[in-house]
Order: sequence, then structure tokens, then C-alpha cells
Amino acid sequence: MILKSMLNYQMPLDLAFHALADPARRAMVERLSRGPASVSDLAKPLAMSLPAVMQHLQVLESSGLVRSEKVGRVRTCRVEPKALGVVAEWVARRRASWEQQFDRLGAYLAAHPEEPNAKKD
Amino acid sequence: MILKSMLNYQMPLDLAFHALADPARRAMVERLSRGPASVSDLAKPLAMSLPAVMQHLQVLESSGLVRSEKVGRVRTCRVEPKALGVVAEWVARRRASWEQQFDRLGAYLAAHPEEPNAKKD
Repeated sequence: MILKSMLNYQMPLDLAFHALADPARRAMVERLSRGPASVSDLAKPLAMSLPAVMQHLQVLESSGLVRSEKVGRVRTCRVEPKALGVVAEWVARRRASWEQQFDRLGAYLAAHPEEPNAKKD
Repeated sequence: MILKSMLNYQMPLDLAFHALADPARRAMVERLSRGPASVSDLAKPLAMSLPAVMQHLQVLESSGLVRSEKVGRVRTCRVEPKALGVVAEWVARRRASWEQQFDRLGAYLAAHPEEPNAKKD
């Protein structure tokens, strides 16, 4: 039961990381993080058909990383800062944890200069 | 050809984001970012069989996020800071880009208080 609720809770991260595991989708997020763009703007540098881009866009939209809005004949896409923020937060927390770990190791080694083999285990 | 070389270049990010798209693997990275652990230590909070954990470990190792080493009968796993650093860097750059975008919009709106429709372009 614990795992089940953990899975539900973590769904947005699953979807966001999955969406970012594709180079075309990352290229789209890169483009959109510089400003809104139409679907054809997104397609140009990717040398991809519009339907292929639309499929990638759908994955990005269901992950919450991107949203789009159709006005007249043009669909304009924007990055959704909140979802990428959740990813950034998760990664930053892990980074902070392991840096603390190395700081502790460094402090230990500094405090025990007489034990040159301390680093080996 | 451009797309091909882009794909090759981006492979590590593909693998890292794919590895992180699973809650069990993220739980393992979370645990390891607090310090090295054996495979059975990793398995405990996940309520998963050792073979299942080993499979997730394999995905994490091929992504470069984690490495493991067997000494005697115990396999000890560690986080590989460089690979998670690449992910952190990618996410941070996107965040910086879109924040710049909002700053520019904010500056524009501050400079044009007399145009309430300026946001609509």
C-alpha cells in the first residue's frame, strides 16, 4: 500500500522524466524555454513531419511540461514552468544530498590527516 | 546527418532521463545520494525482490547515474555525481532561459504601463 501511494504521488515526475528522455522532445523544450512558438516553428529545426511533432507535443502536454493553445489556424506552445520546476527541484535535492556526503568525507579526511588509508573503504 | 549526430551526442541524457522516469529507480538514487548502500539495503524500503532491484540497478548503471562494485558477497552501489550533474545542468539551463523570458516580459510591462493590452501581442 505504501508503494502504491508513492507511485500515485510520483506520477508527475514519471511523466516529466519520460517526456525528457527523448532528444526531439528536449529540443522542443529548449526552444520553448526561450519563448512561445507555433508547432511549425518547433518542427523546422527537427527535420520532422508535423504529425511526428504533434505526437511529441502530446507527450509533452500530458507530462505538464508544455501547454498549447489554438487561435485561428495557429497552435502556440509554451513551456509550463511549474512542471519543469518540480524536475529541477528533485534533481537539486539529490545533488545537495551527495554534495553534503562529499563534504562530510572531506571534513573527516581533514580531521584525520594521520590516516592516509582512511579514503580506501 | 545533423539530427543523427545530435542523437549520438544526447544519448547520455536520454538514458539518464529514462532511468529517472521510474519511481523505484528514483527511490534508489535518493537513497544512494545520501551514501553508498548494498543491493539488499536498496531493496528493503521498496518491498521488491532482489532480482527486481538488480534489474533496476542495471538500468541505473547503464545510464551512468550509479555504479556498483562487488567485494566478497556484497555489491555496494554509489551514485555517480557526474551523470546526475549533466541532468541538473540541462534542467538548470532551461529554467534560466524561461526565467529570463519572464524577466523580459516583466521589464516590458513595467516600461509600458500605459498599454494594458501589451501582453496580448
